[in-house]
Amino acid sequence: MAPSVPDRLSEYAGIAWQLGVDAVALVPGPNFTRALGHSFMSHERPFLLVIPADGAPAALVPNLELASWEQTGFDGAVFDWRDQNGHADAFAALLDHLRLSSLAVEGQVMRVFVHHALVASQPDLRIIDAEAEISGLRMIKTPDEIAALERAIDISERALTRTLETVAPGRTEKQIEQTLIRFLFEEGADGLAFPPIVAAGDNSALPHAHARADYALSPGDALLIDFGARKDGFAADITRTVFLGHASDEARALYETVLQANLAALAVTRASVTAHAIDDAATGVLEASPFADRIRTKTGHGLGRDVHEAPYVMRGNMAALPAGTVYTDEPGLYQVGNFGVRIEDDVLITQDGCQVLTRFPKDLMVIPC
Amino acid sequence: MAPSVPDRLSEYAGIAWQLGVDAVALVPGPNFTRALGHSFMSHERPFLLVIPADGAPAALVPNLELASWEQTGFDGAVFDWRDQNGHADAFAALLDHLRLSSLAVEGQVMRVFVHHALVASQPDLRIIDAEAEISGLRMIKTPDEIAALERAIDISERALTRTLETVAPGRTEKQIEQTLIRFLFEEGADGLAFPPIVAAGDNSALPHAHARADYALSPGDALLIDFGARKDGFAADITRTVFLGHASDEARALYETVLQANLAALAVTRASVTAHAIDDAATGVLEASPFADRIRTKTGHGLGRDVHEAPYVMRGNMAALPAGTVYTDEPGLYQVGNFGVRIEDDVLITQDGCQVLTRFPKDLMVIPC
Repeated sequence: MAPSVPDRLSEYAGIAWQLGVDAVALVPGPNFTRALGHSFMSHERPFLLVIPADGAPAALVPNLELASWEQTGFDGAVFDWRDQNGHADAFAALLDHLRLSSLAVEGQVMRVFVHHALVASQPDLRIIDAEAEISGLRMIKTPDEIAALERAIDISERALTRTLETVAPGRTEKQIEQTLIRFLFEEGADGLAFPPIVAAGDNSALPHAHARADYALSPGDALLIDFGARKDGFAADITRTVFLGHASDEARALYETVLQANLAALAVTRASVTAHAIDDAATGVLEASPFADRIRTKTGHGLGRDVHEAPYVMRGNMAALPAGTVYTDEPGLYQVGNFGVRIEDDVLITQDGCQVLTRFPKDLMVIPC
Repeated sequence: MAPSVPDRLSEYAGIAWQLGVDAVALVPGPNFTRALGHSFMSHERPFLLVIPADGAPAALVPNLELASWEQTGFDGAVFDWRDQNGHADAFAALLDHLRLSSLAVEGQVMRVFVHHALVASQPDLRIIDAEAEISGLRMIKTPDEIAALERAIDISERALTRTLETVAPGRTEKQIEQTLIRFLFEEGADGLAFPPIVAAGDNSALPHAHARADYALSPGDALLIDFGARKDGFAADITRTVFLGHASDEARALYETVLQANLAALAVTRASVTAHAIDDAATGVLEASPFADRIRTKTGHGLGRDVHEAPYVMRGNMAALPAGTVYTDEPGLYQVGNFGVRIEDDVLITQDGCQVLTRFPKDLMVIPC
């Protein structure tokens, strides 16, 4: 059963205590949705939930969202504002009501215009970026959350299977991307976790490539597909790299190196491992290979309501990761002008090891043509 | 022909001059895409393009994006940073290179962690929210941009036609939403402009409702669909409200009022009209009706690369709108617990009047059942 709204809000009050600030502020996004059990759109209208370390929470709500807001069961003070009147008075009333001297915010979610509106109302308000602590509450997933993630992954893998059946010489990256998107929705996605990356040939060497309408696949091409469905609020994030017709010796050696790096990360994963140690295991394999100059990225990132969230799996991040954490294990090697390979799994950390939530095969796949 | 990158960047330098600040900074998002002609993802990695009023631009680029970055043709200084080392040194080097005392940013796009990284590197840097001026450059659409928007609208309307053919008693909001999404991609959408709103019965009274899997349509229900395709970087935004089986007298009167408000906005639209005057015309019709207490929102907003952008069509916004501006004309009336009606067109302002880009009929539609 999901915790009630007051239970969830008390966790954010705890963050304020822990940081020694007067309150935590959330804006629409993954933390806001988690706290309230309802999602709201974030556009040009400021929308703010403030949870003090001590005392009742309060909110600043665009008037047109009030009826939706009431469905959340929130029982603190609400300061609404209408488009016609602007939001300055509502900010002033909220801050007058709360009497804060310091406020912790989500630095990766809150935009500068809200920061400026807060400071305009109360110039001496000390605003602290507590992204790590606030979003850190999302790190350990509940069984319900893991089940939602598994549904998102399942949809994604079915769509990938169907998409690869359509890949053939002459198909463009763009056609393959559109096919993948269609299959994701047909398989039950609520949305896309992010715009898919479908990159063939030299485009596969760009970690965030755009699909080209004018690039038709030809035999020997690498085809890198990085994508995910969103389901029930959770995002899958999967990458597979396949080859069309045949794979060169270089491609096979590169693929095997990346696969060994992917497996090395899994081998060290268990509760209390550091993010550093996971990256070190995977990146160590890449560095020891003949392809060390093709390393471009860290090993991965947390995954849940957001596609990129804590923990960031990279050397230097000495955070010990608890059971219930989900991260992406996505080592890659990329050579500009040539090609790239990435293999990405979604991994749940358990007491004794890990559970790889993605089940799509990782053996080198050559699509016959 | 699209302007070259240097031409586009000089427009942002012009904004810095106009505001009397040393430079304009852009982060990934619609302005960044417009300035460079390439889109980049914005995640946890800071990514910054700085265009001084005077002198050469410079950029702070995540290392893994460098190869994509080179495709933009940008020829200023580039400060890259790798995940493993963090971005503090790159911010310090960028700011040392630029020697700024003030910087204008996009307050609706830049997130607080970038603001904090700038201030951490240079505590005396004065940061100004110039969202209106920077995004204001997108207000007048070029013929190429209007053509992209028309393609997005065309795809959307074909998908809506097909979706309405599937509406029948017993279908749930969620089923209709999933059908609409599938048709959008089948008709050629690159993506969704935003998660569609498919709201029937009492849900239609919530301007930003979520589709319910457990609400099946029944005769007499209003069905409000607010959605749009994204195509070639541009977003459509269309709403139609239809009725299933029959429409009550109240529904017909309400619909007619909203339609008259929509038409009243069009009647006053021509180059140099103020945003205030458009809202005043539409809202005036609603206020003069028996349903004045059901007004919840302003009349509309600008539309282009972003679903919500300048100009905001509301009373008090005395900005005179030039030919080439595109706005949404979307008056609505909403009664919580009962139902709502919204009719939304995408409107191009011309010298002598306007061109309504949306062509889907607006006569009251009752779906037989």
